[in-house]
Amino acid sequence: MSGGRRLASWNDGATRDAVLGFIDAADAVAVHERVAVFDNDGTLWCEKPNYPQFDFMVDQLRRAVAADPTLAERTEYRSLIAHDSSAIAEIGLERIAMALLELCVGIEPAEFDARVRAFFAENPSYRLRRYQPMLELLDELRAHDFSVFIVSGGGTEFVRAIGRDFYGVEPHAVVGSLVGYEFVRDASGAPRLLRTLELFGEVNEGAPKVTNIQRQLGRRPIFAAGNSPGDTEMLEYALACDGPSLAITIDHDDAEREAAYESTAGTFETEGSYLDGARRLGVTVVSMRDDWATIFPG
Amino acid sequence: MSGGRRLASWNDGATRDAVLGFIDAADAVAVHERVAVFDNDGTLWCEKPNYPQFDFMVDQLRRAVAADPTLAERTEYRSLIAHDSSAIAEIGLERIAMALLELCVGIEPAEFDARVRAFFAENPSYRLRRYQPMLELLDELRAHDFSVFIVSGGGTEFVRAIGRDFYGVEPHAVVGSLVGYEFVRDASGAPRLLRTLELFGEVNEGAPKVTNIQRQLGRRPIFAAGNSPGDTEMLEYALACDGPSLAITIDHDDAEREAAYESTAGTFETEGSYLDGARRLGVTVVSMRDDWATIFPG
Repeated sequence: MSGGRRLASWNDGATRDAVLGFIDAADAVAVHERVAVFDNDGTLWCEKPNYPQFDFMVDQLRRAVAADPTLAERTEYRSLIAHDSSAIAEIGLERIAMALLELCVGIEPAEFDARVRAFFAENPSYRLRRYQPMLELLDELRAHDFSVFIVSGGGTEFVRAIGRDFYGVEPHAVVGSLVGYEFVRDASGAPRLLRTLELFGEVNEGAPKVTNIQRQLGRRPIFAAGNSPGDTEMLEYALACDGPSLAITIDHDDAEREAAYESTAGTFETEGSYLDGARRLGVTVVSMRDDWATIFPG
Repeated sequence: MSGGRRLASWNDGATRDAVLGFIDAADAVAVHERVAVFDNDGTLWCEKPNYPQFDFMVDQLRRAVAADPTLAERTEYRSLIAHDSSAIAEIGLERIAMALLELCVGIEPAEFDARVRAFFAENPSYRLRRYQPMLELLDELRAHDFSVFIVSGGGTEFVRAIGRDFYGVEPHAVVGSLVGYEFVRDASGAPRLLRTLELFGEVNEGAPKVTNIQRQLGRRPIFAAGNSPGDTEMLEYALACDGPSLAITIDHDDAEREAAYESTAGTFETEGSYLDGARRLGVTVVSMRDDWATIFPG
């Protein structure tokens, strides 16, 4: 650990105290039980105006249309190319997302990985959309021997492609929505994995975040961070463990430096606002406006 | 690394040279690409006379019958209790395995973990069924900064329960056959995960070993070890990577010190024996009789 102030971009106050108090208390927990899970969109990086994965998929569409202009005639793609929000709404985001997924069917994991990396190399501004205070929190947890995992509603392979570079998180430490794979042999008989259109299991939001943590990681978190209703079950699961625990949710309340909105992604229902419901569950709400001195890397 | 002879329990010869030659060549590979996968039954520990997981399940049955003697009347359980091999054959191992799985339905991951640990604590001889040369190989790979994963046809949660203690492998580094989980809330509203009877995805043998490696780990192995037809696709997948690679399969050819048999688990079909087919694919065959000076820990 460096000698500077811990969580340097966090303002003094009850929230920072709660986070540091938990981390210090966790020093008494067996190292292999120091497990922290983080949602990605809106928790580790900014999800406005668009999810970065959506931007990537639209970029894939642009490239595909350049190679085959007839693709632009397809209803779902045409609505995106024309930025026709009423057509997009009519078609529905789910159908559009599946149409975009088709653009990557039949390619190997290494090729998908290369495409994602190329997108971020060509669009370096996404690195600046990470939240500096959360990067510091990742480092602080690791300095206290936590294993850190990302548990995203987004595509597992998409997050894996930038996880090491953006967050210091290895591919096996990313839990997300899983695409299907087909095992085939090429002409020489060598085995290959090709992406299919099916999803493997459920979209990783809500209760599936908890079941997928158990399935893929086999470890129970004592710390969880999220920002939307779809993270609630994961936050509750961390809080319900034995011993020290902490769950935080990011309140996007800074219209000036980021955006002012309350996330509605996910299925958790509560009386009143999501944040009020989260508070009643014992979740610590992090105000971007009040708790963070800096939001984005300088 | 200690100063002793590398792979101390391996005899001098072409096999040991091939293994060490690969490990040294991998020093030139990026650290995050140094990925090794190991089958478990018959590769890291002895699978004769029974799979240890089968012994555990029969022990669970014994406990369940002690608590509820009426269970002994159930056809599948009666055949096991009576060691009635003709009845077992008639019922079929698959139906018996599912009946045994029922004994753990509705319990939480931590309870299942505790049951497995208790079984191995009460039956310490299983530690002595690990293969000493393979334990040394795990250590040698880790000394060269490999990430080591277990990819077993057995139950993921079963292997996880002993992975750290037996092999130094963390729960998230175990890929196996996955049981289903149900997310429920207890009377106080706290979230709980309960085991169900369904399997999540396919049994982890054959091509599913490869797809599950990608799904759960997101990393491609450059080293793979197995011992049965169900490992073949995984071995081929490792060999088909770019750069240095090695795949080994254990030949159980030592009737005196272990057992003499050729595994038939899995679906890989080849002309002639499994081992001949593996050799044709470029897999290095490890003779327990000739290549291992010691088989079990002393």
